[in-house]
Amino acid sequence: MKETKNRKEPIILDCTVRDGGLVNNWDFSEEFVRDLYRCLDAAGVEYMEIGYKNSPKLLKSDGAGPWRFLDDAYIRDIIPQKGRTKLSALVDIGRVDEKDILPREESPLDLIRVACYIKDVPKGLELVNLFSSLGYETSLNIMALSHVMEAELVEALQEIEQSSVDVVYVVDSFGSIYPQHIGYLVELFKKHVPSKLLGVHTHNNMQLALANTLEAVRHGVTYLDASVYGMGRAAGNCHTELIAPALRNKRYELRPILEMIEKHMVAMRKEWEWGYTIPYALSGMFNEHPRMAMAMRSSETDRDNYVAFYDRITSVETAPAKA
Amino acid sequence: MKETKNRKEPIILDCTVRDGGLVNNWDFSEEFVRDLYRCLDAAGVEYMEIGYKNSPKLLKSDGAGPWRFLDDAYIRDIIPQKGRTKLSALVDIGRVDEKDILPREESPLDLIRVACYIKDVPKGLELVNLFSSLGYETSLNIMALSHVMEAELVEALQEIEQSSVDVVYVVDSFGSIYPQHIGYLVELFKKHVPSKLLGVHTHNNMQLALANTLEAVRHGVTYLDASVYGMGRAAGNCHTELIAPALRNKRYELRPILEMIEKHMVAMRKEWEWGYTIPYALSGMFNEHPRMAMAMRSSETDRDNYVAFYDRITSVETAPAKA
Repeated sequence: MKETKNRKEPIILDCTVRDGGLVNNWDFSEEFVRDLYRCLDAAGVEYMEIGYKNSPKLLKSDGAGPWRFLDDAYIRDIIPQKGRTKLSALVDIGRVDEKDILPREESPLDLIRVACYIKDVPKGLELVNLFSSLGYETSLNIMALSHVMEAELVEALQEIEQSSVDVVYVVDSFGSIYPQHIGYLVELFKKHVPSKLLGVHTHNNMQLALANTLEAVRHGVTYLDASVYGMGRAAGNCHTELIAPALRNKRYELRPILEMIEKHMVAMRKEWEWGYTIPYALSGMFNEHPRMAMAMRSSETDRDNYVAFYDRITSVETAPAKA
Repeated sequence: MKETKNRKEPIILDCTVRDGGLVNNWDFSEEFVRDLYRCLDAAGVEYMEIGYKNSPKLLKSDGAGPWRFLDDAYIRDIIPQKGRTKLSALVDIGRVDEKDILPREESPLDLIRVACYIKDVPKGLELVNLFSSLGYETSLNIMALSHVMEAELVEALQEIEQSSVDVVYVVDSFGSIYPQHIGYLVELFKKHVPSKLLGVHTHNNMQLALANTLEAVRHGVTYLDASVYGMGRAAGNCHTELIAPALRNKRYELRPILEMIEKHMVAMRKEWEWGYTIPYALSGMFNEHPRMAMAMRSSETDRDNYVAFYDRITSVETAPAKA
């Protein structure tokens, strides 16, 4: 596990299935996921996040595909022979059943990432320490950083520094952060979790996902989340096909990623929407969760009513609350 | 004219009609251009580039709309009453008839921008000096900077420093430049044309147009080219609706730009393609003119053959040349 500690060069973690699942309710075929693994492995991408390891006992399934509730035997069935690319899964606080997590030597997973809000960092670290004791590489991803006061963040980071976590992520959940502020955040993390590796997860609301990821690299961040063709919630993520060549590392091959895009992503994008739209740009600018914008884009009648959306997102008025 | 010399804050030059005309052969209705002027003026955008002032005597028209060959009387007809937003036009070396250029007091235009390749800088400066003597604000835009050797660029800049030009542009014609290299170029320009204001014109091939524009601002660039909804050749430009709010200047209003997008740009984008596609991304990465990629995107059969395009753009082989 501790080999990660010695890494200096940036590495790519592709989260197409996991974050992209938030677009299509994890409706990825087995062929899609097999092809993605083969392409990422051929491309030299270091990690593929194959989904969420949440428990269907703790979360309504709502018809979600199997990548929402990963089962180790099923992963092995899809990817019987791993190449160089490691596998990761994300878990949410309160949605994972600890009994579902096998010791690492019995699991196809290498890295388990724990996502939580700032108030749940202690719970997140409890999970991290458990997964770490089972032999996994671990990361802690504090979501919605742009809504967190710096004093509260610093307290959490000091607690994280004392944990067994390997990687701590700077997460721009709302795609609201500009490059200069990514640099500021990374420096803050470096100061308060000096013994940890850092990661970055960006969203493309203002078309800054690649630039923010590159800015994070300039400040020494190691783990870079990306997704093929940018597929991820709302405006999507940093594009794997853009970050890999930008890193100028002989390890990466672009061609297999293009194969994946040509074979699967063009059709996928016709069926499901992600990427730049005006409501997502406005969510980013106003530092808001994209749920209101996503609802609008799902409405046949409202999807292009940008001015009305702007008036709504900038309004200070709300309906009176009757008792 | 010289009021520009004292400007310190960044200003936006919207080139939707001019660069966007390279997408739709300048097929903009009069209503579109009138609405654009009204919206940009209400938004506080400082300049609107209303097209090219090339001469139909010197360039085949190929059915291009009137914004390709601007006529002063026609501009006045479309915009009889100017607001705060100034008007600019671009001219190409060898395609402008100097006799078409009236003295500034007789023209609705405020700024004439001269675009040229590095080898034509002396010709460009001759035009600049003429337009300057007629009372116009002027800029020189050296295209395809990413194909220019630094030694040659420095010689040109030293010559430009001696001219009457007001603004010198850093132009990323192929969308191939990363933020750190934009900073490098701006510093080089600052060193060799210290008495001039600087501008930046970016393309969005790798989704870096906004980030590169912001990086240029951090290095002291004043004139920022942008277009509404990013409409410009191939991958398009920095989006006006993204750069205006990013500048955090009380002068700008986002809402009128959103009106323009809602009323015109969504339908325009359905009819004409611009923005991120894999062939444009590859053109940017490989620092090539997008013409091959544009031809591919216009082909019904080839438009999504990304792997074949990659093989072609990375091939060192060419067909034998029979005498």
